[in-house]
Order: sequence, then structure tokens, then C-alpha cells
Amino acid sequence: MTRRGSRPLDVAELVERARQGQPRAVARLISLVEDAAPPGTGSGSDGARGQLREVAAALAAHTGRAQVIGLTGAPGVGKSTSAGVLVGALRKAGKRVGVLAVDPSSPFSGGALLGDRIRMQGHALDDGVFIRSMATRGHLGGIAWATPQALRVLDAAGCDVVLVETVGVGQSEVEVISLVDTTLVLLAPGTGDGVQAAKAGILEVADVFVVNKADRDGADQTVRDLEHMISLGRREQEAGSWSPPIVRTVASRGEGGHDVVDAIERHRSWMVSRGELDTRRARRAEAEIQAIALGQLRARLGDVRRGDALGDLTKRVVAGELDPYRAADHLVAELDTGERGAWTPGAV
Amino acid sequence: MTRRGSRPLDVAELVERARQGQPRAVARLISLVEDAAPPGTGSGSDGARGQLREVAAALAAHTGRAQVIGLTGAPGVGKSTSAGVLVGALRKAGKRVGVLAVDPSSPFSGGALLGDRIRMQGHALDDGVFIRSMATRGHLGGIAWATPQALRVLDAAGCDVVLVETVGVGQSEVEVISLVDTTLVLLAPGTGDGVQAAKAGILEVADVFVVNKADRDGADQTVRDLEHMISLGRREQEAGSWSPPIVRTVASRGEGGHDVVDAIERHRSWMVSRGELDTRRARRAEAEIQAIALGQLRARLGDVRRGDALGDLTKRVVAGELDPYRAADHLVAELDTGERGAWTPGAV
Repeated sequence: MTRRGSRPLDVAELVERARQGQPRAVARLISLVEDAAPPGTGSGSDGARGQLREVAAALAAHTGRAQVIGLTGAPGVGKSTSAGVLVGALRKAGKRVGVLAVDPSSPFSGGALLGDRIRMQGHALDDGVFIRSMATRGHLGGIAWATPQALRVLDAAGCDVVLVETVGVGQSEVEVISLVDTTLVLLAPGTGDGVQAAKAGILEVADVFVVNKADRDGADQTVRDLEHMISLGRREQEAGSWSPPIVRTVASRGEGGHDVVDAIERHRSWMVSRGELDTRRARRAEAEIQAIALGQLRARLGDVRRGDALGDLTKRVVAGELDPYRAADHLVAELDTGERGAWTPGAV
Repeated sequence: MTRRGSRPLDVAELVERARQGQPRAVARLISLVEDAAPPGTGSGSDGARGQLREVAAALAAHTGRAQVIGLTGAPGVGKSTSAGVLVGALRKAGKRVGVLAVDPSSPFSGGALLGDRIRMQGHALDDGVFIRSMATRGHLGGIAWATPQALRVLDAAGCDVVLVETVGVGQSEVEVISLVDTTLVLLAPGTGDGVQAAKAGILEVADVFVVNKADRDGADQTVRDLEHMISLGRREQEAGSWSPPIVRTVASRGEGGHDVVDAIERHRSWMVSRGELDTRRARRAEAEIQAIALGQLRARLGDVRRGDALGDLTKRVVAGELDPYRAADHLVAELDTGERGAWTPGAV
């Protein structure tokens, strides 16, 4: 994959090729999204940021068609394998599928691990499937910023379904996963009981529960725990609300993929009937706008940092001479006055 | 716990009482931190935000003494139980201990679960221990914002050690945990192999590895996997750098607490000898200032939202009439012009 140092992009041509579903063009656009992460998120380059604006403008009219599915769960439940099975079932149903594996792994040396790629390899040569691991590592906001934009690329490239797989169960990932059309939450017997799942904050965002490794001891107990928790939740809900179904799979043997696809379709029908799909899509667009705006503001803070106002303020806070609020006031005041000129409006 | 609706605080008196270690005053100050979460993070009230500035100013001169220890690991490894054992060992060493259980659980109905409290109950009546679960739920940035400030409260209250326990292993939690003095990463046999731990992004931030449930099958393999990964990492490191030790515990039987305390002390000595402790504390203060400044900027975006500029922009993005970058430009432009007057400088 070419990144920095590659020849300048002809954006119009690249977007046109991506719309035709050419994998290299799609890959290059997603790389651009990653490279364009806003200053202060630990990565990103100015050139990429400028081009991304052009790309975003070109894509806008061609998005909003893909069905966006989230897949999450604690480590060890079999997310990558399940993603592979789900892709298989969607392909059999004639869908073009994009997979975004959001991997915030290593804050320092990160990136996608080989294991994911290998488990997905069955689909690697299928030109109806586009698989991409996104290593939006480092600072807060990286995932929230890059994921919706990579989604737009796959959407414009003609994917009928985009599957967003998040590794781990942290706060920012819950946020990302809560912005899809349908969220699948994966559990497996023995990798943490219901209390652990509740701790992870993913029960409330689940539209469909998938109990994987359903051939193992404890699977029935996991299903019963879930049913119990769902029934507790339902008492407070209004009539006609969605009650997340529980689907059993054995992803390692390829079992259950069609049941998951059925559950997704039922959820989609329910959403359409209630206007919920439009609501979720508006929420996703809103979150994206806010993340970009916050990235712009963060970029201004980054400019202040280069002038080392922050370094001086930090020393005074560590010494106990200044509290962090007054330090932050000084930092923000710098934005509003002297440093304004250093910030280029229009470049995220 | 009194929260909103309680009588106005006499800040000077409250801070003085907290400095004397009075639990109710400490609890009230931490509640204030939680209530003061910046607009846009899903919680917080204006009154609390105003008072928090006063509190922060009063605390500034009394902080910087506590040793800050982070404890993290995937769900199911036994973090709460291990925290209890560690607190016991620290108490035997004569330390006053604060525990902050950072629990980003439920984005909607969150809060700390009973299980944690029960497991920590052995220490609940010990007045040398202050235990607090922080449910900084909802939006990105909540944890990064509130944790350092709650730390300051416990620090000023005379805690020799503050233990920050994070539930889960997401991006924002890795960020929080990377800002402590010493990070303990907990693993357990059978709850995910080395690859899963690597995925969680916690290997690089570990100063000490704790293999809990060391009496179980697979513990030796977990230790060997870790040793292998540490040795791979070391090749790239300079001489004199810290190599994270691996400590075995059986927290459910109270075994290994002292070994963990020994490892923490060795790490502290190494940090002091290399100037690393000062570096980490400066990094923590810097992150705190930036989080508050970003909270102020986010608050400005929140004001724009109330005017529903964001709602209109969202509709146009969903309709494909506008790309999210141009929408964000409009949003930021609102900050710089008309909405400025609506923002109260000095209120985070």
C-alpha cells in the first residue's frame, strides 16, 4: 500500500475508480483518511488533510446507501472468525461487503495483527469483499474521527453492507459501535459472565446478541443470563420497542452465519418501520461533523503547543503554582489571540 | 452521596476537611468533579463547573505527593480482587491508600456494579483507605477529563498511594493508564492468549505484569508467552531501560500482594534514578491541561448545538448536499463569530 511519498493523487480520477469498486483506489482513499487524522491525534500529515477535503466533497453525493453493521465483544470471543462467517453468509445472499476492522491496539507500535488477516483470508481473493484493518492508534478521538470517513469511502465504492469490527470494549469503541445501523454483540461461554459483559458497557448498545462457541459447556447458561438481563431491561421499555434476539453460532465450524443475517434483516425492517434508521443515520452524521470540528479546534491547540506555551504552563502546574483550569484558560486564550494567524482555516 | 440539590459548598472549608482526610469531604469533592464534566461529555452542571474551578485553585498547592499506580487488564482476569489484595499489602506497609475504579460501563444507565464494592468490602471500614468508583460514562473524553482531577483530590487528602483501576482495555483507558507513575497489567491463564493481550494495546504500557490465577493450568504458558514478548521488545531498547518483571498472584487466596508491592517499589526507584518520574508527572499535568482546554472548546461547540446550527448541517450532510468537512467549517465559524458571546470565559 502506497502512503506518504506516493505521487500526487488525481482526486477526481481516484474517486471515480473507487466508485467503480477498484480495490486499489478504495485502499488508497482509506489510507488517505488514516493519514489525514487531525493534528493532536498522534498521526496525520498536512498534505493528506488538504486532499481529504477534496475527496470528501467528491464522495458526498454518492453515500448513504450501505447498510452499516457493527460487531463487537470482549477479546477472545471470536470476533474475527465470526466476521469471516458473516461475510460468507452475506456473499451467498449476493451482497457486496466491506469490512473495517478498527484496531486501536498498540498506542506506540500498533497496527493490525496478522491473525485477523489470516482468519479472513478465505475472502481475500473475492472481489465482492473489501477488507481493511484500521490502526487508528494513539490519541483519543482517532477512532471516532477516522471510522465514519472510511465508511463513506466503502459506501461510495458500492458496498451493500459495511461491517465494522471493533477490538476490545472501551469507551471510544462503544461510541463508534453505537453509530452503526445494527450492532451485533458477541459473547462466548467462559470468557466472562454477564456481569463482565455489563461492565464492558455493551449490553445497552446491542441490537442482536450472538453467543459464539455455542457448542461449549456453559453456552446455555450464557444464553439464560442474557435472556434474564434482556427481560429486566424490557420492563422499562415501551411497547413495540426492539428486543434484541439471541443467536447461537459456532463460527470456527462456519455455523450460524445465516441466522445472524436473518436477525440483522429483521432489525433493519423494524428500524425502517419506526423511522429509527433515519434517526441513527442523522446521529452518525452529527457525530462525524462534531468530530471533525473538534479536530479543527484540537489542531489549534496543537499550534499553541508548538509555541511551547503548553510546556511552560505544565511546569507551573507540576510545581503547584497554577491549577490546571487557569492553565487551560491561558491555553485557550492563546488560540483566540496571537496564534489565530498560525491556524489555516479549512485545513482539518 | 449528596449531589445536585445539596446545599452550596463552602469550598475553603470542604478542601480543608478533605486535607484532614475526612471521607465525606473527599467524597463530596470527587462528586463535584464528576458533576462538573464538561458540556458535550454527556453530563455535568454549570454550578458544579463553577465551583470546581475554586476547588482546583485551592488544591493546587497541596498535590504532587501521592504515588499513582494503574491497574488494568481484560475483563475476567480478577482486577477488583487483585486491587483488594494490593490495598491490603499497602496498608500493612503503613500507607494511606486511595482507589479510583474508573468504570466507563454503561453509556446510558452506567455506574459502578455491586460486585466491585463487595470484593473491596474488606477495606470499606478501614479509615486509611478511600474507595471510589467513577462512572464517567457517555461521551469520549469523560474519563480523560475526570480521572486526573479525582486523583488530585485524593492526593491532597493525604493518600500515599492512589490506585487507578480501569475496567476494560479500550483506547481511552489505555490513555488514562499511560498517565500514571507505574502501570500494572493483569493477565490470567485462559482468558485470552498473548495475541489477545497485544490486541488490547496494553503490553507496551506495562511497567509490571501480574499473572493472576497463577495456580491454574496454563499459568506457566502465560508467563512464557510474556517472557517471549518482553525479550522481543528488549532487543530494540537501550541499555539501562526498564524491563517489566512478571509477578504471579492468586488474588482470590490473597497470595502475591507483597511481591506486587516490591515490584512497584523497584520500578519507582528506577524511575527516580532516571528522572522518569518527573517526566511522567509532567506528561500527566500536560494531558490534564489539554483535556480541560479541549473541554472548554467542546463547550463552545455545545453552545452552537443549542442554537441548532448542527441540526441543520446534519440534515444537509445526510442528504448528500454537503460534505462533513464543510459542515464542520460552518460549525467552527459559528464559534468564532456570533456564538462567542454565549460562551462564558472561565467556565469549563
